[in-house]
Amino acid sequence: MSELRKDIIGGRWVIIAIERSKRPDDFRPAQETQKNESQKFCPFCEGNEIKTPPEVFAIRRKGSKPDQPGWLVRVVPNKFPALSPGLTPKIEKSEDGLFFRMEGIGVHEVIIESPNHKGELADFRLNHLEKIIDTYQNRMLEIQKEKQYKYLHLFKNKGREAGASLSHPHSQLVATPIVPKRILEELRSSSQFKERFGQCIFCRLIEEELKKGERLVYQNDHFCVLTPFAPRFPFELRLYPKGHSTWFSEITEIEKKSLAQALKTVLVRLKKILSDPPYNFYIHQGPNPHSIGDCPNGVEHYYHWHLEIIPILTKAAGFEWGTGFYINPVSPETAAAFLRPKS
Amino acid sequence: MSELRKDIIGGRWVIIAIERSKRPDDFRPAQETQKNESQKFCPFCEGNEIKTPPEVFAIRRKGSKPDQPGWLVRVVPNKFPALSPGLTPKIEKSEDGLFFRMEGIGVHEVIIESPNHKGELADFRLNHLEKIIDTYQNRMLEIQKEKQYKYLHLFKNKGREAGASLSHPHSQLVATPIVPKRILEELRSSSQFKERFGQCIFCRLIEEELKKGERLVYQNDHFCVLTPFAPRFPFELRLYPKGHSTWFSEITEIEKKSLAQALKTVLVRLKKILSDPPYNFYIHQGPNPHSIGDCPNGVEHYYHWHLEIIPILTKAAGFEWGTGFYINPVSPETAAAFLRPKS
Repeated sequence: MSELRKDIIGGRWVIIAIERSKRPDDFRPAQETQKNESQKFCPFCEGNEIKTPPEVFAIRRKGSKPDQPGWLVRVVPNKFPALSPGLTPKIEKSEDGLFFRMEGIGVHEVIIESPNHKGELADFRLNHLEKIIDTYQNRMLEIQKEKQYKYLHLFKNKGREAGASLSHPHSQLVATPIVPKRILEELRSSSQFKERFGQCIFCRLIEEELKKGERLVYQNDHFCVLTPFAPRFPFELRLYPKGHSTWFSEITEIEKKSLAQALKTVLVRLKKILSDPPYNFYIHQGPNPHSIGDCPNGVEHYYHWHLEIIPILTKAAGFEWGTGFYINPVSPETAAAFLRPKS
Repeated sequence: MSELRKDIIGGRWVIIAIERSKRPDDFRPAQETQKNESQKFCPFCEGNEIKTPPEVFAIRRKGSKPDQPGWLVRVVPNKFPALSPGLTPKIEKSEDGLFFRMEGIGVHEVIIESPNHKGELADFRLNHLEKIIDTYQNRMLEIQKEKQYKYLHLFKNKGREAGASLSHPHSQLVATPIVPKRILEELRSSSQFKERFGQCIFCRLIEEELKKGERLVYQNDHFCVLTPFAPRFPFELRLYPKGHSTWFSEITEIEKKSLAQALKTVLVRLKKILSDPPYNFYIHQGPNPHSIGDCPNGVEHYYHWHLEIIPILTKAAGFEWGTGFYINPVSPETAAAFLRPKS
């Protein structure tokens, strides 16, 4: 089992994923290993179901059977999980008070977005995107029943430069035994704003941004896509539900259609304008609703879920890693103007 | 002039470097632009002094003149600076209270580590490394006189994968008008520990780590090199001065020799064991000693400077960007065992 460790000076937990442990040699051919990846055997392709752990969920054609062909979206546990199922772990503190550890319990699943190796979210039909969104919701509703999992993080790495180790279209869902630092920071800001001004800071921001328009990329009935005022990276994007909602798992049927439309529109724009860049996206949401009251330091669950997209165009380097401060060569107003669909 | 903007939800400032602004097309050939970089004209090579802004410091052979050949280490302002000199800026808050901006004042210098295009820190002789360390100190002592520069960040990006845009050996020094978030977080932890236990948390940690030995990579009279207990990345390293010191600029002549020896030893080990990986390193130190009292939220200047090295072997991806939580496939004890010079 992997282990969580705390950097008490930086205030950050890390996961030491022992099962994945490697020798220095394993890092050498990093640039080359995936060159011919498209010709290699792919465990995520239809017909190779036996090469993954048994599926935990799938959207299938009528009559098809689990772990057999006939699926449209399929969810399996990660074969090399960063975290593994277990009960609430205790924090072990060393005698000298300097070293904190915790068992690496959690969930690590792979959402295989399509039976076909080629293709990607931007190319899928809207009704297929809706099925993927549906799958995200389904897995979250299931996993969050276990209250030892304090936070559910859904993310996608597209392309080798974005950290994807397999090119078959997929996203990942990780449930962690603590609420991550970045989420805690945002929860603190949004809870404080709510207390002071009686309003959700995200709702307020969306209202202002829709009025201003200079950072608006796209909107439909239920979603809007903005470049954030203070983006870390060029062409960074945020998709917000216009209505207040803390958790992604609360998404309604009509909102799913609206989200599929918004996501498709901006992914197609990114692909076109930036020549098919690698990207990461992830959902930010409130901590597990079933573990309410477990948040440290009186942080509340007041939040407004959203999806953040980072195209990989520049690299974080010694300045960013050292300071947590980012240099971005493109203003969000310029980025929004480029990405806004021409009317 | 570039602009600082604050993400009020994430609590993070970013620099929108307008002078560097690019069109989407500029991002396309990212993978290719540097392929033949070694054949291209290099403004940092000896003989090309006229192609950089005038030097602000150099260690030169006797009789050679500024901005002429004959130097060993040379410092010039960055031609495309992220921040530019100026007086203390005011924070401008928008009427709705959501958007905070500040003029991007600061310093951005390039330390050209050698007149020769080829070669790198790991290859340099110890007395050349001492000259580079000497140059770092010299520039810091000069820049920190201006108290509007609240923090001085020295860093190095080696290799394209580590964010270097030119391969000629160089490091960079950036002075910022605010104390960066990551430094503030560490200042808070170390000030709190001092208050509670009457001791420097770094001094305490070094004491324990030297006793334990399992994460110790190297030590000499004045420095030790450790893999941190909770590293974000495989083979991440920290170089600590054994004696307590808040600022790098306080380094003594004898410590410079000791640091050169420690740095050379571990860079040579990294190069050998990990096949010459790209890397970032940076110095963490207390805020500008001339701006004491300007720190927000009563944060003190209690700190212990050190140097952090991150070999680029894995990529931060959707999990890391979204959560600030890291998955590391190599334990620091394993990494230290590989990097420890065999006796």
